[in-house]
Amino acid sequence: MILDDVLARIDDDLPQAIDRLMALLRIPSISTDPTFATDCARAADWLVADLRALGFDARAAATPGHPMVVGHGGEGSRHLLFYGHYDVQPVDPLDLWHRDPFDPALEDTPKGQVIRARGASDDKGQVMTFLEACRAWKAVHGSLPGKLTIFLEGEEESGSPSLIPFLQENRAELTADLALICDTGLYEDRLPAISTQLRGLAKAEFTVHAAARDLHSGSYGGLARNPLHVMTTLLAGLHDPQGRVTIPGFYDDVEELSDTLRQQWQGLAFDHAAYLDDVGLSIPAGEVDRTPLEILWSRPTAEVNGLWGGYTGAGFKTVLPAEAHAKVSFRLVSRQDPEKILTAFRTWAEAQIPADCRITWHDEIKGSPASVMAITDPAFEAARAALTEEWGRPAVFIGEGGSIPIAGYFKTVLGMDAMLVGFAKDDDRIHSPNEKYDVESFHKGIRSWARILARIA
Amino acid sequence: MILDDVLARIDDDLPQAIDRLMALLRIPSISTDPTFATDCARAADWLVADLRALGFDARAAATPGHPMVVGHGGEGSRHLLFYGHYDVQPVDPLDLWHRDPFDPALEDTPKGQVIRARGASDDKGQVMTFLEACRAWKAVHGSLPGKLTIFLEGEEESGSPSLIPFLQENRAELTADLALICDTGLYEDRLPAISTQLRGLAKAEFTVHAAARDLHSGSYGGLARNPLHVMTTLLAGLHDPQGRVTIPGFYDDVEELSDTLRQQWQGLAFDHAAYLDDVGLSIPAGEVDRTPLEILWSRPTAEVNGLWGGYTGAGFKTVLPAEAHAKVSFRLVSRQDPEKILTAFRTWAEAQIPADCRITWHDEIKGSPASVMAITDPAFEAARAALTEEWGRPAVFIGEGGSIPIAGYFKTVLGMDAMLVGFAKDDDRIHSPNEKYDVESFHKGIRSWARILARIA
Repeated sequence: MILDDVLARIDDDLPQAIDRLMALLRIPSISTDPTFATDCARAADWLVADLRALGFDARAAATPGHPMVVGHGGEGSRHLLFYGHYDVQPVDPLDLWHRDPFDPALEDTPKGQVIRARGASDDKGQVMTFLEACRAWKAVHGSLPGKLTIFLEGEEESGSPSLIPFLQENRAELTADLALICDTGLYEDRLPAISTQLRGLAKAEFTVHAAARDLHSGSYGGLARNPLHVMTTLLAGLHDPQGRVTIPGFYDDVEELSDTLRQQWQGLAFDHAAYLDDVGLSIPAGEVDRTPLEILWSRPTAEVNGLWGGYTGAGFKTVLPAEAHAKVSFRLVSRQDPEKILTAFRTWAEAQIPADCRITWHDEIKGSPASVMAITDPAFEAARAALTEEWGRPAVFIGEGGSIPIAGYFKTVLGMDAMLVGFAKDDDRIHSPNEKYDVESFHKGIRSWARILARIA
Repeated sequence: MILDDVLARIDDDLPQAIDRLMALLRIPSISTDPTFATDCARAADWLVADLRALGFDARAAATPGHPMVVGHGGEGSRHLLFYGHYDVQPVDPLDLWHRDPFDPALEDTPKGQVIRARGASDDKGQVMTFLEACRAWKAVHGSLPGKLTIFLEGEEESGSPSLIPFLQENRAELTADLALICDTGLYEDRLPAISTQLRGLAKAEFTVHAAARDLHSGSYGGLARNPLHVMTTLLAGLHDPQGRVTIPGFYDDVEELSDTLRQQWQGLAFDHAAYLDDVGLSIPAGEVDRTPLEILWSRPTAEVNGLWGGYTGAGFKTVLPAEAHAKVSFRLVSRQDPEKILTAFRTWAEAQIPADCRITWHDEIKGSPASVMAITDPAFEAARAALTEEWGRPAVFIGEGGSIPIAGYFKTVLGMDAMLVGFAKDDDRIHSPNEKYDVESFHKGIRSWARILARIA
């Protein structure tokens, strides 16, 4: 079998693949710090050179920030775009690192061999799993495994300021049939996963106004409405005793989990007790009739993220303030529309407060809907089968509680679904000192892409 | 009648009394600003000299701050202590004054003649009403109207730091049968009032702890307990839908208003709509089955004075914070004990929260009980009759929603009740630019004290 040849080539070439990754890891491409701007450009150039060596028509495209790496190559009926990022997080505090974060090394650990360096896992190591799969394919077949566009960003760790304009300006060039994103992790140490649904987000900031000025609680206490009471009553009423959000229509566009996904998720045997214990909690919050994974991945939320009013300094002031403030956000799922949810929230909130109080809403409210991939696209089941073959355990479609911005942008700007496949592990210490990437993640990651591309490209 | 002679003497001497008050008003005795420390001492010396001229054995007693003026004189079976303060508020913003705040003048206004100067109403004018009553009495009778102690403070506008130690160190000298305090106002423009009950205060500051660290609402939202929700639910539950505080035992030591006081208060026809409208509100809060005056004067409250947690800066952070904070105070009435109320609150609050959350309480909690004067003491009815005679309208016993610290200290440190009688008006602009005292307040205030002293001294 030709795929077997590719996999064998990957195995043989692993030491050289690690050398290439280490060369990239030696470039300190920290995107948040202007000091490292030339290093970011160097990393982009390194990748352009490597892509060209693989036969891609590649370039580093200038932006107001760091360059985008774009490469096109191969042929096939389905056009696939691969996304990753070459920039890395800062390395502070440096004294907590066991070695120079930009002097990568192989280390033996009780759990296996690891590549230790900033960016090893997030995201240079993951980016290279895909390029090494292409390299092995090319070596065996003489050509790339399909019609591929490679799109590598250099600002992911600094808020992606150039991303949306770049997508808009290069819409035709970057729109493919499906995006492949390699910036996520295995579900457990050796259980491969494809993220197929990511919750959206809607945000509201508002002020409850009562009296025209701050009042003294001696002169007015009891008789004058305290906006902190209005606010606490309002926010306490956001959920019913069963943990459901009380805003009328809030669940209108929420779909029940499919039996297929429910079964897969149940198979994960998510240990919510350990998950909560890790952060010092023991009692699941949220809807009482939903499983913890449903609550995290496929149910919407209403959360207060900020709350303030009255006197908050040292000591005491017996003030009845004129105003109380809150920031509230909603995690959205299925077809929930951010604008519709925010409108329903406003209408509900304004109906809750006394007639002599009022609410002002801040304008900067923004929202994004949930990203729900069309897993009816056979590419998803094909990729799941490929991952299952490689890892020896049935791969699962999982959800993500938060949004992954790039997946949302591909959908909203380019109208393109994304398949999120990654090989990072929970203990990779991304964004922290002593980041590492397991050699197993790297090796089996490359093999996984070869198997996936063999089936879908 | 001898009282008539005293009143006639007061009328005749009014121009000279105004001159004397103006001399005192010319001394800029601002207690908060060290620049004016010698002026404070000068004001104290001026009063000591005036008291000596009236036959008092008077001195300016040094304190770590500004001096206390103490004088003893006269004879009688009931020992009365008169309290007032000679220090004044700062005058900023100076450019809003029509004239130099320490160059007093008589001004004609549509509502009558006023004395314009800082301290005219708060509290030099009110202090001098009492001293002028003594002066007229002495002129007519050759002696003071009774056994009197004069006690004038110079730090009232700066938190009275020396007061409690001074009371403790001079307990025997300052303990009388009853204190007379002249630092309050008429109920309406021409309706005299005696404040006979002042609400107490208990304060609690606490933190609700949930997770061990701040969490991301994408990864944990819905499943992990949000302490802001715990806090809002806790605080929203402080009152039931009828506006009653829900803490068990909270009302145990609250007494119902006596029929006598209820009748007097009903006679006041308190315009709560105007009172609320003045601060931009229209709907009374608080217990639905209580009158507005009861709510303000004789019912306890639970109020949130400060509330904060999560992200409160500009923009948005979808954080589930680890902690939420609040400052809560209780206005107390009747025999409610601050410590007992705070204990009940703590017990109640800790029973409300989920088992994996906890509350920490800040230690600096302090409280003071309500001051409820023993109006069964015939001096109160006698003073009420005297005020009724002078002003031609039935004087009333009223309440105060806030505590007046000096009345509390006289009670807690010296075990002495106080009768609060004052002649200030709501439009006196105390603490503000263009403070004034009506000549009518000053004139009838002097006459009021002469009448009161004739009955009770």
